[in-house]
Amino acid sequence: MECFGEILDMVRRQSPVVHSITNYVTVNDCANIILAAGGSPIMADDAAEVEQIVGLSSSLVLNIGTLNTRTAASMLAAGKRANALNIPVVLDPVGAGASSLRNETLRTLMREVRFAVIKGNSSEIRFLAGDKATARGVDADEGTLVSEDNLAASARMAMDMCAATGAIIIISGRIDIVAHPKGAWAVSNGDPLMTRITGAGCMTAAVVGCCVGAAPAELPQACLCAMCSMGVAGEIAAENMGAVGGGTGTYRTLLLDAMSSLDGPAITCRGKVQHIA
Amino acid sequence: MECFGEILDMVRRQSPVVHSITNYVTVNDCANIILAAGGSPIMADDAAEVEQIVGLSSSLVLNIGTLNTRTAASMLAAGKRANALNIPVVLDPVGAGASSLRNETLRTLMREVRFAVIKGNSSEIRFLAGDKATARGVDADEGTLVSEDNLAASARMAMDMCAATGAIIIISGRIDIVAHPKGAWAVSNGDPLMTRITGAGCMTAAVVGCCVGAAPAELPQACLCAMCSMGVAGEIAAENMGAVGGGTGTYRTLLLDAMSSLDGPAITCRGKVQHIA
Amino acid sequence: MECFGEILDMVRRQSPVVHSITNYVTVNDCANIILAAGGSPIMADDAAEVEQIVGLSSSLVLNIGTLNTRTAASMLAAGKRANALNIPVVLDPVGAGASSLRNETLRTLMREVRFAVIKGNSSEIRFLAGDKATARGVDADEGTLVSEDNLAASARMAMDMCAATGAIIIISGRIDIVAHPKGAWAVSNGDPLMTRITGAGCMTAAVVGCCVGAAPAELPQACLCAMCSMGVAGEIAAENMGAVGGGTGTYRTLLLDAMSSLDGPAITCRGKVQHIA
Repeated sequence: MECFGEILDMVRRQSPVVHSITNYVTVNDCANIILAAGGSPIMADDAAEVEQIVGLSSSLVLNIGTLNTRTAASMLAAGKRANALNIPVVLDPVGAGASSLRNETLRTLMREVRFAVIKGNSSEIRFLAGDKATARGVDADEGTLVSEDNLAASARMAMDMCAATGAIIIISGRIDIVAHPKGAWAVSNGDPLMTRITGAGCMTAAVVGCCVGAAPAELPQACLCAMCSMGVAGEIAAENMGAVGGGTGTYRTLLLDAMSSLDGPAITCRGKVQHIA
Repeated sequence: MECFGEILDMVRRQSPVVHSITNYVTVNDCANIILAAGGSPIMADDAAEVEQIVGLSSSLVLNIGTLNTRTAASMLAAGKRANALNIPVVLDPVGAGASSLRNETLRTLMREVRFAVIKGNSSEIRFLAGDKATARGVDADEGTLVSEDNLAASARMAMDMCAATGAIIIISGRIDIVAHPKGAWAVSNGDPLMTRITGAGCMTAAVVGCCVGAAPAELPQACLCAMCSMGVAGEIAAENMGAVGGGTGTYRTLLLDAMSSLDGPAITCRGKVQHIA
Repeated sequence: MECFGEILDMVRRQSPVVHSITNYVTVNDCANIILAAGGSPIMADDAAEVEQIVGLSSSLVLNIGTLNTRTAASMLAAGKRANALNIPVVLDPVGAGASSLRNETLRTLMREVRFAVIKGNSSEIRFLAGDKATARGVDADEGTLVSEDNLAASARMAMDMCAATGAIIIISGRIDIVAHPKGAWAVSNGDPLMTRITGAGCMTAAVVGCCVGAAPAELPQACLCAMCSMGVAGEIAAENMGAVGGGTGTYRTLLLDAMSSLDGPAITCRGKVQHIA
């Protein structure tokens, strides 16, 4: 697991088409971060075309941030088609627990679609794991955050969920957890400013889409690469803020800048990955 | 009414969840300005979930910028639910007068939902007040703008509309008017560059949502705080443009930067608020 | 054809309302570039209002980037109404060839609506011309790009398509082709960084909308003005990147900056237009 940074270079070389069915709040950020990471975004979301679009794609990302009944059907159709074509599918269960629409859609998606990766914040993943976490809009509830204190327990929960779903489970936060059925890692990159802009979580899922699209046979490494890439980009953006003295608008721009300038060696060098289980 | 600047500090401390049902043009800007002001945005817009999402929120903002029949129904359901829960509802009647769909939807919303605040440009507010203003797309018609010359008449119109609707009325423009049934203020902050980017008006409504969410018992002060915050942020962004020599793309970034760096004392100090009625 | 740069000054003076029915990925960029170019954007997309909104507008831009069955109907209704009112209609056939939904919608639109301008990348235009180009998501296929080697053949294809459709045909790329039934030009402005951000193509169509809205009687010149404006803005943004050392996030900001600062003389001076047929 030393060379996961190289997967970003594979993204750059292959330019995988990442089909995203996502929310209208951060869709532009997602398209731009996919391009910055080296992928090629396509955001088609009508049920009448998503199966054909999946057929042109290297990965599929389903993000339920502004779910509606129209796109819920598109997500299901696209997910099934991706499964049939063996294209990896990433789920970002934004706001899981916040409404029956989200919960029922997630239940259907998780029953009907085989996910390669499920990435959520701690509230969302805990909800999917059966915990009755209190959803507070789309942000993680304080009480559920992964910390040094609950790292082992969080890893165990994620690994149990891997076993139940067959998916790599990613819990994003100050410390990210990446778990597969036989092991788990903590990734400690990132910067608190990432929570001050909208879309950092959605962009992370989009970058996961790039990495699993480029390396579908190495899903755990692809996920580690994606989490380190976003985290390191977030750190570089924060460092560069010092020079310009900006606020959250500037930070958002610098985050895209940093991702577009990253390379595999930088990730391997700066990535803070710890094997925890 | 001296300490309205403190309401921004309340937003920062409480981080109110602001539920926005809004247009797809500026939704990302709205989410980012809510975060920059210290709130927590959620943009759910499906009729199947908006009532539950409202229940998690501190305020609701309805913006008809790219209204469609699907979201019109969501706005009505969310508005009624917010009323039942005593959560303040803000209306941004974008493009009022421009189409029958907008006009009929506004008529329904104003009949069925009790608004805490209605904020529009001069054309939109005049249209709602019964004036047959000529709508020119989504921008205010020159002839309807609030100026020093028509300040008293504009305040009177706004106060009449307060009496008729029970809502605080905000007319945004070079000079903003904030009117409640017993008085009116003019706010003279802001910068002409705000009209050169999309979304300044929508972002203003989003910030109103933050302030009324944090201080629902002090609606006039919350509205003054929001208008001054946006205006002062717009001024600071323009001042900082001088240093970097940018255009409208940079201005947009600097506007978010300025909002994320504002605090209550800065608003109290720089706010140009005049009691006019 | 010397003074096409002046059309940008006409846009600035007239501020044409540009009605866009477009995708949710880049709609904010489109609205901001329209404002930066001097126009006034309105993005209404519900079938219940598009005909009335077209009636307030100077031009209509139809962009099928995230087409759905709801907006396909809106595009058809708006296009027909624009024809009846003699308002120029611009088509951006994003992802033509990628799905049956897109192809059938394009077939219907091209049969029912008279387009003033059709602007696409080489894959899209070749597809519309009857070539079975391989669509790769929404980006042009390498093999179809316009280059010095196939310039004459590309111009001929575009002119044939002009004759068949009655529209000005624009093929965007490293070298753009602008063709009308009796002649064709190559525009060699632009910068490779434009392909590293999402929306450069959509923004180009939006600027075409501004220019044809301001000069509907001079369509070829308006198209040349638009293509040179975007290309020169892209070059200036790239030059200014040198000073700040940014990545793609900064480039996107600088592109809007450059467009907002352009004037007719700059375009006339820097525009690289070559009469090729």
